[in-house]
Amino acid sequence: GLMSQEMFPMADLAALGLKVLKSEELSARDHGIDSSNFTAGVAVCPKSLEEVQAIIKLCARHEIAVVPQGGRTGLAGGSSSEAGQLVLMMEELSSIREVDHSARIAVVDAGVTLHSLEAAVAEHGLTVGIDIAARGSCTIGGMIATNAGGGEAFRNGVSRQRVLGLEAVLPDGSVLQDLKKVLKSNEGYDVKQLLIGSEGTLGVITGIVLRLEPATKHRQTVLAVAKNAGDALKIHHRLQQRFGAGFLASEIMWKDYFRTTCRGLNCQERFGDLVGEVYLIAEVELASDDEALLEEIGVSFEAGEILEAVFAKNEQERRDIWLVREDTFEIDKAYPGGCWFDISIPLDELDQFVRESTARIKAIDPGLQLFVMGHLGDGNLHYTVAATHPVARLYEQIADALYAGLTEIGGSFSAEHGVGTEKIGSLAKYGDPGKLAMMRRIKQALDPQNIMNPGKVIPAQ
Amino acid sequence: GLMSQEMFPMADLAALGLKVLKSEELSARDHGIDSSNFTAGVAVCPKSLEEVQAIIKLCARHEIAVVPQGGRTGLAGGSSSEAGQLVLMMEELSSIREVDHSARIAVVDAGVTLHSLEAAVAEHGLTVGIDIAARGSCTIGGMIATNAGGGEAFRNGVSRQRVLGLEAVLPDGSVLQDLKKVLKSNEGYDVKQLLIGSEGTLGVITGIVLRLEPATKHRQTVLAVAKNAGDALKIHHRLQQRFGAGFLASEIMWKDYFRTTCRGLNCQERFGDLVGEVYLIAEVELASDDEALLEEIGVSFEAGEILEAVFAKNEQERRDIWLVREDTFEIDKAYPGGCWFDISIPLDELDQFVRESTARIKAIDPGLQLFVMGHLGDGNLHYTVAATHPVARLYEQIADALYAGLTEIGGSFSAEHGVGTEKIGSLAKYGDPGKLAMMRRIKQALDPQNIMNPGKVIPAQ
Repeated sequence: GLMSQEMFPMADLAALGLKVLKSEELSARDHGIDSSNFTAGVAVCPKSLEEVQAIIKLCARHEIAVVPQGGRTGLAGGSSSEAGQLVLMMEELSSIREVDHSARIAVVDAGVTLHSLEAAVAEHGLTVGIDIAARGSCTIGGMIATNAGGGEAFRNGVSRQRVLGLEAVLPDGSVLQDLKKVLKSNEGYDVKQLLIGSEGTLGVITGIVLRLEPATKHRQTVLAVAKNAGDALKIHHRLQQRFGAGFLASEIMWKDYFRTTCRGLNCQERFGDLVGEVYLIAEVELASDDEALLEEIGVSFEAGEILEAVFAKNEQERRDIWLVREDTFEIDKAYPGGCWFDISIPLDELDQFVRESTARIKAIDPGLQLFVMGHLGDGNLHYTVAATHPVARLYEQIADALYAGLTEIGGSFSAEHGVGTEKIGSLAKYGDPGKLAMMRRIKQALDPQNIMNPGKVIPAQ
Repeated sequence: GLMSQEMFPMADLAALGLKVLKSEELSARDHGIDSSNFTAGVAVCPKSLEEVQAIIKLCARHEIAVVPQGGRTGLAGGSSSEAGQLVLMMEELSSIREVDHSARIAVVDAGVTLHSLEAAVAEHGLTVGIDIAARGSCTIGGMIATNAGGGEAFRNGVSRQRVLGLEAVLPDGSVLQDLKKVLKSNEGYDVKQLLIGSEGTLGVITGIVLRLEPATKHRQTVLAVAKNAGDALKIHHRLQQRFGAGFLASEIMWKDYFRTTCRGLNCQERFGDLVGEVYLIAEVELASDDEALLEEIGVSFEAGEILEAVFAKNEQERRDIWLVREDTFEIDKAYPGGCWFDISIPLDELDQFVRESTARIKAIDPGLQLFVMGHLGDGNLHYTVAATHPVARLYEQIADALYAGLTEIGGSFSAEHGVGTEKIGSLAKYGDPGKLAMMRRIKQALDPQNIMNPGKVIPAQ
């Protein structure tokens, strides 16, 4: 039961004393990655758990769909909205409730940004342990609702593994109050796990207990170029063996991504001498005068795995290296209208899978170009497939070519960006039928009115 | 609809070619921890996923309750059975399907024991990363179904965090086929998380993909005695700061537990000189000639945190130390008929909570004795409350005294042993109502006939 704008119970929202933003106020704001985030034309900004409850109860009574939004940095359309829906902005729920230094725990409101939490815990010599490129504006609630991954996941786990406790408002307006601060708790089904990664379709996360990690004191960064992904993996395993938990980052970029992004960023001069098939960024925890990384890179060089390497001599050089990896939008500027993919490949299959999937995609149209990069540490690769003209009409064909055999080898066609609206068709086609049936039963059981972020995550039957 | 033994479709089981054990065969076997594990009087031993499916479909058709059993080492009654139910023994599903050395992954059948998996992965220089005292007979499927914790959880996470993929037979006989081998996968709701820790009430786990850890090459072990738990925590934090991921074990025993167990094991002579309030076992990864642990223990000694300490000089001495911690049944031999509890306390609250809960329990009856020990690294303590006579009639009163205020500080009244039948009353009383409502809706949605391990985990309404 979606309602037209006129029938929308604005008066009820106002009567509750809630802060409401209408079209004119929304149009003055950044709608974020997805241009349809504000299509609903009306948003409400609760300031407390009780206000979230009041909103959800009101929406349940009027059968109005609710679209929760954090930093609006999601890439899969999970926070897009339509006329007749209500956007629920979490930005005013932004208190850091507690940071416990010795237990290494933070308790936060869902609307706290990753950036502000990092700043707060840094004062205690701690770090969040999850890091994504959208760190400046993404919220902890959004990260947990999408089970964000990022570059530290191979070391610290994904968001799911960082959550000790959760507080959420459920689709009937009741509250899940499960703010545990301990690692071991088995008090029946761990239902908070359903909220994590459900992209707002099962409730609204309002509070989170996160484990923290000790902050890194020193780090060394190297950008290296290798003949192929197989050699890159040898370097990865070598560094993992040597540095263990001190191995902080392990990223990979294929040459078309690297060179096109360098061109967009005007840094060809700085990195133009590095020539090869794949580029790696490795970071380890090491004092500046410790030569252990230099040694290992030297061994890789002697073994012929590395063709050339550049060490960051200071923080600015480190940032220059990371910018090439993180400013992924240079590809979209150079080749607008491409298709994005976000897959996980078991490490021992990665080299072969990338070669074969590239060939399959090129076979669709030799004019297609692949820009591939990602997190080598956990086998999570991001593909942009583009051409000199937009290729959106080929999305499904490219997806089929890319995903072929991926489930069979234990990989995933949806790694860290979520399903949203973008991958809902792929989930219907490639998702496990047993799992899809469970998802539908759970959604029906917990949100029988389908008011929580409808049209996302769960394929229509 | 439970059926009487006569109506039991034995002919159907036989027609499926399944291996069936009846009362006489069961009575020749070890029923494990819980004397009612074999009360059903009939068990079936499937040899394949398909046989598990056939059994579940048969039971669904006849509305027969199924009780899955792994190693029968559970302490909370999760595998107890009644007449008219069918025990599903997983022992013949015991293949180690795959061990991938470079990706550090194992794929196993649910009936593989922890002991046999450790032996198999040790050949690759790897370890499972979860360790519990029942390691000789507990199965991986049972560990995942109960989300086992153990002594390495503070370092590697609990079982939930070790699982990458899962295969399970659902209550309607369909299959959840989610054998991912990657860390990052967001293909809709992570429904396997519901199976993990559900103690067989939502389906039968048949296959598991586990992350593995590099095996420890060298370890040093120390048994130290401290004035109180506050000092013990100072030592814990000191070792964590110094050794990070190289800090392998951090266990604690209060003196009544330690001395009574030493007496039962006849090792007073070996450890009788250690006198104080709490005893710690710490292990770190260090070559035998490395003095880093000795140094840190020395610093703790100088600071007055440690009163005395004994270093294990060889593997036999190490085993002697661990036996005191792990042979928890000496308490039950000395004081039969006690009550067991299994709680988690946030580390910064631990010292105060133990002191105050001890006082509350003693106030019930000054004759009650507390035997407390557990995993200091994650704040998981096991209490045995006993007296010179059985005290089972005081269970609820003692539980109330022990659990008072525990949820409010972020702790848990059910840490790592599961709910089973034992803690179902406590879950009804102390569980979050929002969570209980979600659990009931999920159980109803996924197992509407209530054939999967009924009477466990979910409190009656």
